[in-house]
Amino acid sequence: MGIVTLTTDFGAPDYACGLLQGVILSIAPETQIVDLTHEIPRHDISAGALTLARALPYFPLGTVHVVVVDPGVGTQRRPMVAQLGDQFFVGPDNGLISYVFLNLRSSFFPTRFFQLTQPFYWLMSPSKIFHGRDIFAPVAAHLSNGVAIEKLGILIDDPVLLDIPGIRQDGTAITGQIVHIDHFGNLSTNITAVDLGKRVVTRVIAGNAVISVLATTFQDTADGELVALIDSSDHLSICVVNGNAHQRLLLDIGDPVKVLFI
Amino acid sequence: MGIVTLTTDFGAPDYACGLLQGVILSIAPETQIVDLTHEIPRHDISAGALTLARALPYFPLGTVHVVVVDPGVGTQRRPMVAQLGDQFFVGPDNGLISYVFLNLRSSFFPTRFFQLTQPFYWLMSPSKIFHGRDIFAPVAAHLSNGVAIEKLGILIDDPVLLDIPGIRQDGTAITGQIVHIDHFGNLSTNITAVDLGKRVVTRVIAGNAVISVLATTFQDTADGELVALIDSSDHLSICVVNGNAHQRLLLDIGDPVKVLFI
Amino acid sequence: MGIVTLTTDFGAPDYACGLLQGVILSIAPETQIVDLTHEIPRHDISAGALTLARALPYFPLGTVHVVVVDPGVGTQRRPMVAQLGDQFFVGPDNGLISYVFLNLRSSFFPTRFFQLTQPFYWLMSPSKIFHGRDIFAPVAAHLSNGVAIEKLGILIDDPVLLDIPGIRQDGTAITGQIVHIDHFGNLSTNITAVDLGKRVVTRVIAGNAVISVLATTFQDTADGELVALIDSSDHLSICVVNGNAHQRLLLDIGDPVKVLFI
Repeated sequence: MGIVTLTTDFGAPDYACGLLQGVILSIAPETQIVDLTHEIPRHDISAGALTLARALPYFPLGTVHVVVVDPGVGTQRRPMVAQLGDQFFVGPDNGLISYVFLNLRSSFFPTRFFQLTQPFYWLMSPSKIFHGRDIFAPVAAHLSNGVAIEKLGILIDDPVLLDIPGIRQDGTAITGQIVHIDHFGNLSTNITAVDLGKRVVTRVIAGNAVISVLATTFQDTADGELVALIDSSDHLSICVVNGNAHQRLLLDIGDPVKVLFI
Repeated sequence: MGIVTLTTDFGAPDYACGLLQGVILSIAPETQIVDLTHEIPRHDISAGALTLARALPYFPLGTVHVVVVDPGVGTQRRPMVAQLGDQFFVGPDNGLISYVFLNLRSSFFPTRFFQLTQPFYWLMSPSKIFHGRDIFAPVAAHLSNGVAIEKLGILIDDPVLLDIPGIRQDGTAITGQIVHIDHFGNLSTNITAVDLGKRVVTRVIAGNAVISVLATTFQDTADGELVALIDSSDHLSICVVNGNAHQRLLLDIGDPVKVLFI
Repeated sequence: MGIVTLTTDFGAPDYACGLLQGVILSIAPETQIVDLTHEIPRHDISAGALTLARALPYFPLGTVHVVVVDPGVGTQRRPMVAQLGDQFFVGPDNGLISYVFLNLRSSFFPTRFFQLTQPFYWLMSPSKIFHGRDIFAPVAAHLSNGVAIEKLGILIDDPVLLDIPGIRQDGTAITGQIVHIDHFGNLSTNITAVDLGKRVVTRVIAGNAVISVLATTFQDTADGELVALIDSSDHLSICVVNGNAHQRLLLDIGDPVKVLFI
């Protein structure tokens, strides 16, 4: 029994996500389907890519991740299946695999990319505007059923990669940026625990705020206080204890965060 | 392992949808449960009926669709199970099967309707105000377990049918109306690709907007442009490329859309 | 194949709920996972406790309920697994089991509580701020796989219990309060059908409203009328027929409701 996850910008209220499930279960009736989220902001490929990268480590070998954030549906953008280490991605070739690719590049895990070219594994007469239902869902189901990835298309070596914001490092500072804001308004950055290493942080600067210590839990400080900590995805986050840093600091995705060391 | 889908107006934040799942899994532990949507506007039977009709073609033989949009719960309205081609509906007899019935009428697929009369297949002492949990969910589970539909109630031949808006056709024009608005603000009508046939569309008129060509994808035109196209449910839709036609045109469900031909 | 339910305050749009599912399916691939709700108001332990108590009767023997409303994560609050009759709870020891405990106390069903102390059943190096993913989800999966509850931790006899609002009774009146407001604005109280017994209700007083009769369904009265009835969880509720009592009466959780008898 395989697992297929769904990540889309369809909005959970829309029945469109349910159609993907119907298609998958028609082909692979035993599949375990997990809705990661259907609330990716419309056409926000970067947000979809980040969600995939942060979720993937918590799924088992063989999981198939369908990600449909697809502003280019119906154009020349390629439909794709990818092997990402021991898991799989199915979706448009528009950069959705960028963060995972970056993570895997520094590992021993193999990555392979295939343009989907075998309509045998699609629904018949696929709609030009809903490849999620008509191409990606059925391909994911066949993959979950054990069809070899090579059978689904032709190998490509130039998947689209987003220009992912990097960090700048020098001896006494790292500058990164906010890349994700969660339901609680916590501001997660692209600076990892590994980037910080063992150095002693003297200050974290985000917008007008200057935070002078790295907390280890939300409980080291009082309610309403601003803290910087390593979040559950191992990235530096700016948070308000039992509050909302996003609303407090009026910072958004893309805004810089700077860490100073001794 | 059968599939049961759930479509309700409970709202996803409410735990009520979870109760239906608990009841179903108590009776039929291997069931695959698919949440189609829990965000049907409150008591909007027509929206529930349309969702069912547009989802059904993507589910396999034997799927049981529970639809609970039930303003008449506790009154004389009948609880019902229906065979709709090779799938099933369970819910109130208030018109929720209208669109599917219309679609199947012109096919060879059989339809049969039964008033639920066998409390043996319900929870004990069903609440007068929550038949979804106490009657429809358990009946769906028993059906999914293989109980014959005839055992669940008595045959009826007069299910409630909504007065579904039709289209008007003459030699040079078709007039239909908007019947669904999705998460992206696309305005889907009751005019199908089959209705249009092979004729050459010269104009689509929706509110103040006049669109002079049928696009085939969202990508034939520039961002922000208004397009008419056949959507993924094979109906004529009015859309704004990477925008929101609902907000742009201030049109709503029930508003007319007219197509002119050469 | 066991059932695991999830109740959190993460918000459904966040992919965090998906991570719990990934962890559970990695350990117990056959699990049926049910999302009860991810929209518990942030840190509202009482709302989480009530949801658990109202959902539990509809799930079968052996179901594992993971509830993550966890303002104290990372502090000394204990991680806990509990046997609640023939089902299980996994989550923080912060009062989330209070309503169920109250219900079971007057029954023959056993309750047992264990502090989670065996990291063997957790993810490695659990995050200090996300025990839902790293401790509760894996423990639930192992429990669902059949691991004995005794193996997961050490028996405790002092689980945290909320000070649950009781009702006041005298010969001619019961005073309770609003404890839950659903998607439709119905105001559910902590007064049960059993509390009312066979006595004849002459008046229900909620804020400025005085209701003179107990309805049995929403259909005994006209649209827009205010009614009091026994709701589907067997509690007294104040409702507006096809309307919203929450908005009409401007009453909220904690506000008193009084029932007068002959």
